[in-house]
Amino acid sequence: MPRYAMKIEYDGTPFSGWQRQVDRPSVQGAIESALAKIQPGPHTIGAAGRTDAGVHAVGQVAHCDLTRDWDPFRLSEAVNYHLKPLPVAITDCARVDDDWHARFTATERRYLFRLAARRAPLALDAGRMWQVKLPLDAAAMQEGADHLLGLHDFTTFRAAMCQADSPLRTLDELRVEEVPAHTGQMFHIHVRARSFLHNQVRSFVGTLERVGSGHWQPEQVKTALEARDRTACGPVCPPQGLYLAAVTYPDDPFV
Amino acid sequence: MPRYAMKIEYDGTPFSGWQRQVDRPSVQGAIESALAKIQPGPHTIGAAGRTDAGVHAVGQVAHCDLTRDWDPFRLSEAVNYHLKPLPVAITDCARVDDDWHARFTATERRYLFRLAARRAPLALDAGRMWQVKLPLDAAAMQEGADHLLGLHDFTTFRAAMCQADSPLRTLDELRVEEVPAHTGQMFHIHVRARSFLHNQVRSFVGTLERVGSGHWQPEQVKTALEARDRTACGPVCPPQGLYLAAVTYPDDPFV
Repeated sequence: MPRYAMKIEYDGTPFSGWQRQVDRPSVQGAIESALAKIQPGPHTIGAAGRTDAGVHAVGQVAHCDLTRDWDPFRLSEAVNYHLKPLPVAITDCARVDDDWHARFTATERRYLFRLAARRAPLALDAGRMWQVKLPLDAAAMQEGADHLLGLHDFTTFRAAMCQADSPLRTLDELRVEEVPAHTGQMFHIHVRARSFLHNQVRSFVGTLERVGSGHWQPEQVKTALEARDRTACGPVCPPQGLYLAAVTYPDDPFV
Repeated sequence: MPRYAMKIEYDGTPFSGWQRQVDRPSVQGAIESALAKIQPGPHTIGAAGRTDAGVHAVGQVAHCDLTRDWDPFRLSEAVNYHLKPLPVAITDCARVDDDWHARFTATERRYLFRLAARRAPLALDAGRMWQVKLPLDAAAMQEGADHLLGLHDFTTFRAAMCQADSPLRTLDELRVEEVPAHTGQMFHIHVRARSFLHNQVRSFVGTLERVGSGHWQPEQVKTALEARDRTACGPVCPPQGLYLAAVTYPDDPFV
């Protein structure tokens, strides 16, 4: 059974998340249904990150096993054809070894969070950014973010339902970038780690917004982290600003 | 009657264009209806650029006359309230002189055109970019674009239905910028002039795509311009990549 890695872009808005669920639309279910049109199923594909409802991706990676040898480009074109009109697209495809695994072979995940601070509603980016109404202090947010870098017990920033065995993770990057905006402020928050806990990025961003708006002092992020207590976290922010940006492998299958 | 200038952002997808039309949704009609909720109408507002169906704006400017004195910020909030749930937002508002005119006082318009060259469908940016399937040569497009700069008779790049008195315009900028893309190529085409003819930007972009894809030599843009003949133009590209980015006035009313 030849195995293929697929790079995937999707708009998370109409989906209950990546993971297949009975009677609810999912990205995994959409791709498995498209695969079933080119080879009788059932198919079960594995992904690098199981994104939540409303979370987008520009660089999700999953693998699938097919009986037939496919030219990877033709496979991506065939899957894209059968995905229509859903907002999911295979942007790259490659043959990989049988023991290559989109999730377990991955050595790093990158997320992007898009945050707008402005009064006027988002006419063009509704569902694509988190909007807050008051201005944010980027330097204060960065100061708060710096307390989270490195190896920590992230119990504070982990969903109660998180199924990971350990709350220990090493955060390699949490960078608050203010980008040009035609009105108000816009921020890109860049997050990078080998792996993440459930709701970790949204817990970070919701907490940093409290810092940026002046409700928290930057040092309170450190206090919250050290509490190792979920109730010490700021509010978890909504999903629509979050994008799974890229997944890294020891050997990039797509080059 | 105090006059107010409004800066406006909109998603052009659901509208037949800026201009009010009987029985068809328009951005002008949407804003005039919202104004009628705060002061009995009819209202007639004037805009700097009458964008076509499907064209977006992040910096459209229009003016309106109201009987009452409004704090400009509260006026924008009230109009935005009544615009819901349409994808139109007043992003700034200012009191201006009675003889100030959004269209006739303007000294410059800037447009942005977003163009993607990739195979996979646009899962996140459908309706927000023009997509072509084959790679484009940015340097060749820029070489073609450079032939259009300056004062010219732009009959070739003007819709047959264009109502302007003269085909003469001075093009101040036509810059092809390749921007980072997570898959394939993405281009931002920056266009700037005092004023434009009908379909001029989309005629430019459709023609430059012919150059970038290798179907035209860059010098053929010069030949087409000098023909002063609409039939010498490349295909007019679709509207969904076009954004009215900014309008300039001798004194910026919004600072």
